Amino acid sequence: MREVIVLGIGMTKFGKSNLSMKEMFALAALEALENSNIEAKDLEALFIGNTLGGFEEGQVNLAPFLATEIGMRIGTPATRFEAACASATVAIRHGALAVASGIHDLVIVGGTERTTIMGTPLATKTFSMGSHSEYESFSGVTFPGVFGMVAHQYARKYGIPLEQLKKSMARVAVKSHSNGCLNPLAHFQKKITIDDVLGGPMIADPLQLYDCCPFSDGAAALVLADAGKFKNQVPKPVHFVGIGQASAGPIYLQKDITRIVAREASVSQAYKQAGIKPTDVDVCELHDCFTIAEIIATESLGFFEFGGGAAAIDRGDTSLKGKIPINPSGGLKAKGHPVGATGAAQAYEIVKQLRGECGERQVEGAKIGLVDTLGGDFSTVCNLVLRRY
Amino acid sequence: MREVIVLGIGMTKFGKSNLSMKEMFALAALEALENSNIEAKDLEALFIGNTLGGFEEGQVNLAPFLATEIGMRIGTPATRFEAACASATVAIRHGALAVASGIHDLVIVGGTERTTIMGTPLATKTFSMGSHSEYESFSGVTFPGVFGMVAHQYARKYGIPLEQLKKSMARVAVKSHSNGCLNPLAHFQKKITIDDVLGGPMIADPLQLYDCCPFSDGAAALVLADAGKFKNQVPKPVHFVGIGQASAGPIYLQKDITRIVAREASVSQAYKQAGIKPTDVDVCELHDCFTIAEIIATESLGFFEFGGGAAAIDRGDTSLKGKIPINPSGGLKAKGHPVGATGAAQAYEIVKQLRGECGERQVEGAKIGLVDTLGGDFSTVCNLVLRRY
Repeated sequence: MREVIVLGIGMTKFGKSNLSMKEMFALAALEALENSNIEAKDLEALFIGNTLGGFEEGQVNLAPFLATEIGMRIGTPATRFEAACASATVAIRHGALAVASGIHDLVIVGGTERTTIMGTPLATKTFSMGSHSEYESFSGVTFPGVFGMVAHQYARKYGIPLEQLKKSMARVAVKSHSNGCLNPLAHFQKKITIDDVLGGPMIADPLQLYDCCPFSDGAAALVLADAGKFKNQVPKPVHFVGIGQASAGPIYLQKDITRIVAREASVSQAYKQAGIKPTDVDVCELHDCFTIAEIIATESLGFFEFGGGAAAIDRGDTSLKGKIPINPSGGLKAKGHPVGATGAAQAYEIVKQLRGECGERQVEGAKIGLVDTLGGDFSTVCNLVLRRY
Repeated sequence: MREVIVLGIGMTKFGKSNLSMKEMFALAALEALENSNIEAKDLEALFIGNTLGGFEEGQVNLAPFLATEIGMRIGTPATRFEAACASATVAIRHGALAVASGIHDLVIVGGTERTTIMGTPLATKTFSMGSHSEYESFSGVTFPGVFGMVAHQYARKYGIPLEQLKKSMARVAVKSHSNGCLNPLAHFQKKITIDDVLGGPMIADPLQLYDCCPFSDGAAALVLADAGKFKNQVPKPVHFVGIGQASAGPIYLQKDITRIVAREASVSQAYKQAGIKPTDVDVCELHDCFTIAEIIATESLGFFEFGGGAAAIDRGDTSLKGKIPINPSGGLKAKGHPVGATGAAQAYEIVKQLRGECGERQVEGAKIGLVDTLGGDFSTVCNLVLRRY
């Protein structure tokens, strides 16, 4: 396998947008091309994540239209990937593998999604389609409900009083909003307090409003290339050193909902390929669709022992200057969550961090970064380990 | 790149089914595993095509649920591809490339779709989502409308009287239905005459009812493996020798709607990789969503000169015992068209033909077969060249 590098990155402001999926992707892609010193006509393929384009804009078969939207040559392959919230990360993985295996030398990868056009009822309904249709969404299970159950089970399993866990969860939200204030592209740029979280409306017990990420619109894109041919193309190339993807099916197959086994399988592939341990990771963007989701992710990714994730946030271990800074971008919680674009935005942030271009939210001296994206509740996880030499 | 072989194949009866997408896929996959002498737990990855599962059954994030449905190990990657009608072929391509590049040794690929549950109005609306949402489907363009325009333009460009072209188109339908009668898995098993076609209701001038393929339910699956490790696994392995995929954007970028440039780009990649010429192909399953679509496809695939496809059907060149048998399975027209499963069913037929297991519809001595699938009207084409040694 050949070495794959990121040449350039681009991302739209996340939030509510009046632009179409195609227009948002074009903004992100043209920015990524510009800072790669590459023209669209030189790209050999496109790999895109999108989850709900049919419901949002009546558009399936999106990939070829994105390719022509940004001026790629007629006749180049363009492929859409859908893995619920992990759609873009899965697209990035396949783009990186296509370069690594010598099929292409230069490709563009990313994600685009426009959720807010649907309104909350349709968005809630369509988001639940990422669950198993016969056994979960059909019977009314939604993601807030699932992660509410995860929080209860976590408290019970580790003997943590629920009120104490709720405070730890609140600290996740406070940290994410604090980081989001330092990210001009974040959906929310507003500080919140623990009291704001604990005083918010109940969504799915014990999750309150600020425990949940928002629906957002947005797009992000990365230009990937063969290191052998393109290593002198840009001043700060970032290398793919480990990639993982794993699936684990519906809830009824999960023995312990406080651990996402797909994540453990995926990240162990990625760490092994990169030849690193969790303690080698300097910065991580992980899938915090809910505050409890961040806590359990920090454990499965190996940063803290199982049952230790809540205490770690209490100690400040995951803050910008902590032991392992988590979601410096603001995460899904504050940066926003345009489903099929989320993984690309996570990769955007990690590349920016490794390049040292994150200003006030920069994790000092970051050399190794991890992307972690969850699709559905337990069913798909994709991880990327990126490195700056 | 390593050599990739097909170990086993499976397919459901196409038509109207009361089974879910997951159940249909399981039937096809378990059949493919059985005739591969492989167990599901040995599979390393799943690559699936599906187009409209969100609308059909409220299911996105389908791939991981299919993997567990058939008993694959927890932790294996499962990925959904969506490229409108070409979804399964694109999934097969990526599965084959994953084996060719050494990422996996043994994978399952395929497609599943359940269109009839939607009813015709919703099916028509959602099918049109494969067109460009702002410039085509939004303004009322549907696929019958587009291919009606193609027929008019074809008649005009080549100076063929429209009534004569309609008879050639009718012969395509008659041939497909005749072949479908020999395929126990075909949706339609009913002979029709030229008069039946020309006497049918008008759909989109000059296309009449029998010029159009139906909506169907169905699934098909193939087990792919590294030839080096698995060549003695089954008595009749079929080899992947050429693969192509290309995109060409929306209608407004097409200079000549009688030629699908994405097809020409894709099939030339596939022929080049296989080291063959069009005249080397013994049997072809191509994308006959409409009768005129078959005629123009036979030209772009290089079987006949441009403008000569209509005369070729008149001469019987594409019938079972003709110069180049096209769609011995009955094609989309008679075998049926479960959108995201169609490409996998085409590959199923070609493998079965190359193994010499097609009974009355067998193309004698077939050694090289071509799969051709079109996604959207002009935007995505994927081709596979398969060979039996």
